[in-house]
Amino acid sequence: MSGFKFKEVPGGGVTSALGFKASGVAAGVKYIGKRDIAVVYSDCEATVAGVFTTNTVKASSVLLNMERVKSGKARAVVVNSGNANACNGPRGMEDARSMTAETARLLGIPEESVLVCSTGVIGQPMPMDRVLPGIGKAVEALSENGGRDAAEAIMTTDTEIKECAVSFELDGRTVTVGGMAKGSGMLHPNMATMLCFVTTDAAVEPGYMKELVKYAADRSFNMVTVDGDSSTNDSLLALANGRAGNSKLKAGHAGCDIFRDALTEVCVSLAKAMARDGEGATKLIEVKVVNAPTEKDASLAARSVASSTLFKAAVFGRDANWGRILCAAGYSGAQFNPDAVDIFLGNVQVASGGQGLPFDEEAALAVLSGDTVNVLIDFREGTYGAVAWGCDLTYEYVKINGDYRT
Amino acid sequence: MSGFKFKEVPGGGVTSALGFKASGVAAGVKYIGKRDIAVVYSDCEATVAGVFTTNTVKASSVLLNMERVKSGKARAVVVNSGNANACNGPRGMEDARSMTAETARLLGIPEESVLVCSTGVIGQPMPMDRVLPGIGKAVEALSENGGRDAAEAIMTTDTEIKECAVSFELDGRTVTVGGMAKGSGMLHPNMATMLCFVTTDAAVEPGYMKELVKYAADRSFNMVTVDGDSSTNDSLLALANGRAGNSKLKAGHAGCDIFRDALTEVCVSLAKAMARDGEGATKLIEVKVVNAPTEKDASLAARSVASSTLFKAAVFGRDANWGRILCAAGYSGAQFNPDAVDIFLGNVQVASGGQGLPFDEEAALAVLSGDTVNVLIDFREGTYGAVAWGCDLTYEYVKINGDYRT
Repeated sequence: MSGFKFKEVPGGGVTSALGFKASGVAAGVKYIGKRDIAVVYSDCEATVAGVFTTNTVKASSVLLNMERVKSGKARAVVVNSGNANACNGPRGMEDARSMTAETARLLGIPEESVLVCSTGVIGQPMPMDRVLPGIGKAVEALSENGGRDAAEAIMTTDTEIKECAVSFELDGRTVTVGGMAKGSGMLHPNMATMLCFVTTDAAVEPGYMKELVKYAADRSFNMVTVDGDSSTNDSLLALANGRAGNSKLKAGHAGCDIFRDALTEVCVSLAKAMARDGEGATKLIEVKVVNAPTEKDASLAARSVASSTLFKAAVFGRDANWGRILCAAGYSGAQFNPDAVDIFLGNVQVASGGQGLPFDEEAALAVLSGDTVNVLIDFREGTYGAVAWGCDLTYEYVKINGDYRT
Repeated sequence: MSGFKFKEVPGGGVTSALGFKASGVAAGVKYIGKRDIAVVYSDCEATVAGVFTTNTVKASSVLLNMERVKSGKARAVVVNSGNANACNGPRGMEDARSMTAETARLLGIPEESVLVCSTGVIGQPMPMDRVLPGIGKAVEALSENGGRDAAEAIMTTDTEIKECAVSFELDGRTVTVGGMAKGSGMLHPNMATMLCFVTTDAAVEPGYMKELVKYAADRSFNMVTVDGDSSTNDSLLALANGRAGNSKLKAGHAGCDIFRDALTEVCVSLAKAMARDGEGATKLIEVKVVNAPTEKDASLAARSVASSTLFKAAVFGRDANWGRILCAAGYSGAQFNPDAVDIFLGNVQVASGGQGLPFDEEAALAVLSGDTVNVLIDFREGTYGAVAWGCDLTYEYVKINGDYRT
C-alpha cells in the first residue's frame, strides 16, 4: 500500500489499534491446511457499525449481524472462509448462532456481543464438526500480532492478503485505524462478496459511527466492481473501542473530519486492493469522472465504465477503444451532454467534445501496459466528481469461475 | 429456426413479405470483400415504427431515424456494418443524411422516407468515399431474393446469418412477417448492439404499429443479454406495407392478437439466435421465472440471472452452481421470498424452498452439456412469468473483445 495522506502503520492491520487481538487458524472448512477461521477481539466493549449486502437473498450470518449491530455495541467477530452459509434454511441460522455462542463461551463474553461472517460456496451446510473446534483453536491463538493470520484466514480466491492501517493525532492522542478485507470475485457497487473489518481505538458515539461507516463505504467498497454480481454475504463491520482516550467523537466535533478521512482512506486502500486482485485480473482500472452536474451522475458514470465488460476486455487486450468508455457512461443513467465530454487514458487525450481525437497509439499502448490504467472523463458541465475502481476481464476469470464449486 | 407456433417460411427473411426487395453488397467499409452495405426497399409506402437504444450517447443514424419515424411512414432502409458512425460530431449527422439522400436519389423517393442504420467501431469517421458507391451497388442489386445477402451485410462479429419469416391467414389473406438481425457483443436488455429489421405485408395503422413493436421488443430483444453493455446504435425498425390486402389493423381489430403474436414470434426467434451467437458463446441460456408476484419482478429476475457473469462462467464450466442463480435473482431488484424459491436446471430440481437439494450431479452435468441450458425459477407466490436469454461466458469472448478495434 502507498500514497496515504495519513501516516501509514507499516505492516498494519486489524490489530494495529490499541486493545485489539486477532487470529487465523486452519480448521479444514473446505481445504486442509488453509487458514479458514479468524477471530477479532476487543479487550473492552466497542462501538460497532456495519454496512450489509442489498441482495434480497442474505446469508444467515448477515441477518444475525443486522439484528445485533442495532445495539451499537460489540466485542468480537468470528469469521470463516470456505462456506458462505447462505441458502441453508433454518439450519443456516442455527449454525451462525452456534458459531457466536461458542466464541462467546470461550471468551467469557455475552453471545449478543459476537458477530459472525462467512464467505465461500452457497447452499452447502456448514461443516460444524470442523468449525467449532476451529473456533477453539482461533480463540486460543488470539494475539496482538495476529492481524496478518486473520487477514489470511478470510481469503477465498484472493491471491494477496489485504490489510493496512494509518494513524494520526486527535485531542493530543494517537489514534489508529486499521483494517483487513477479502474480495476477489463478485465485487460490485453496493457491496460484493467482500468482507471488510475495520478496527480503531478512537472513541466514537454509536449513531455517528454508523453515519461515518456509510460515508466511507459509499466512497470505497461501493465504488469497486469486478463482475457486477452482488453477493449474499457482503459485509463491512467497524469496531471502535475508545482505547486511544480521545473525547468521544460525535457530529460537529472538531476531530470528525480527520477521523472520517482516515476511515475512508483505509477503506479506499482496501477497496483498491480488492479491485487489483479481482479474479484473474492483471490490471487495476481507476475511472475518475470530473465536472459532473451532480455527485450521483459522476458516480453512476464512473461505476458503469469500471464495470463494462467490453471496456474491461479492451483493457486486457490493451486496445485504446475509448468509444466503449463513452458508451458505458451513456447507458449508466447519468445525465450529461455527450457532445461536451473529454476523455483521457492516462495522460493521452483520446476524445474531445464527444469526438475522437487523432492520438499517439504508442503512447496509449504504454498507458494500457501499466499496472494501473487511469481513465479520466470530463463532463465539462458541473463541479462534482467520483472515482470507481475495477479490473480487466481475462481468460483467467473465466477459468476460475467456470469451476468454482467443485 | 424451429419451434414456431406459426407456419415458418423456409429460408424466409426480409424479402418474404410481398412488395419488399433487399440487397447486400461489399463496399470495403472496413474489410475488403465482406458484404457491408444493405438496402431494404418497399415498392409502396409502408407504415414504420422503431424502438431505439436508451443510451444517452446515440449514433447519428439513431438520432436521424428517431426524427423520421415520427411521420409513421417510410420506403427504405440503408444499413452499413464496419463503422457505427457514433461519436463523430456534426460530421456524423452529415454522413448519415448523405447516406439517405444518395439512397433516395437512386430510388427516386423522398429523402425523408429513407432510414439509416450503422454498426461497427465507434468514433471513427465514416469512409464515405467507399460508402456512397456501395449504396449505388446495393440499389442496383435490389431483388426479391436479396434477403439473405442483406442479412449477411449487416453482420459484424456474428458468426451466423439471422433471419426468419412466418405466415398466417388474416381476413382470408395470407400475411407474412419476416426479419433479419445482427447481434453478438454488447447485447443487453433495453436493446444492444443489435440491429433488427422486420418487414410485413400486413396493413397496420401507424399508432398501433408503434404499440405492437414495443410489445414485441419488450418480450424479445429486451430480454436478451450477452454482456450487459447497451450500445449507441441499437435499433429495431419494422415496416408494414399493406400488400397482403387485409383490412388495416388497429387496436380492437379481431386479427390483432394473431398479428401481434406472429410479430413477437419473429422477434423472439431472432433474439434467441442473437443470444446463441453471443461473442464466444457455446451455449444458449434460457431463464424462465414463473409464479412471480408481478411481470416486472419476473422480468427483472430472469434478466439478472441470464446476465450474471458468475453464472454464465459456471455454465461454460458446466458447474451446477445454483447458488449463483438465487444470488443473481436476489440482487435483481425483484421482490420475492428467498425461502420459497424452487430452482430447476433442465429437469433436475436443485433447490427447494430456497435451500439446496441433494441432486444427481451426473444428470445436472448432462443438462449443462446441452446446446441450450434451461433454468426454471419458481417464486411460488404469484401468477406472472417472464423468459430471458443469454449465453455462457467463455475464453473466446475475452479474446474477441480484447482486440476488436484494430
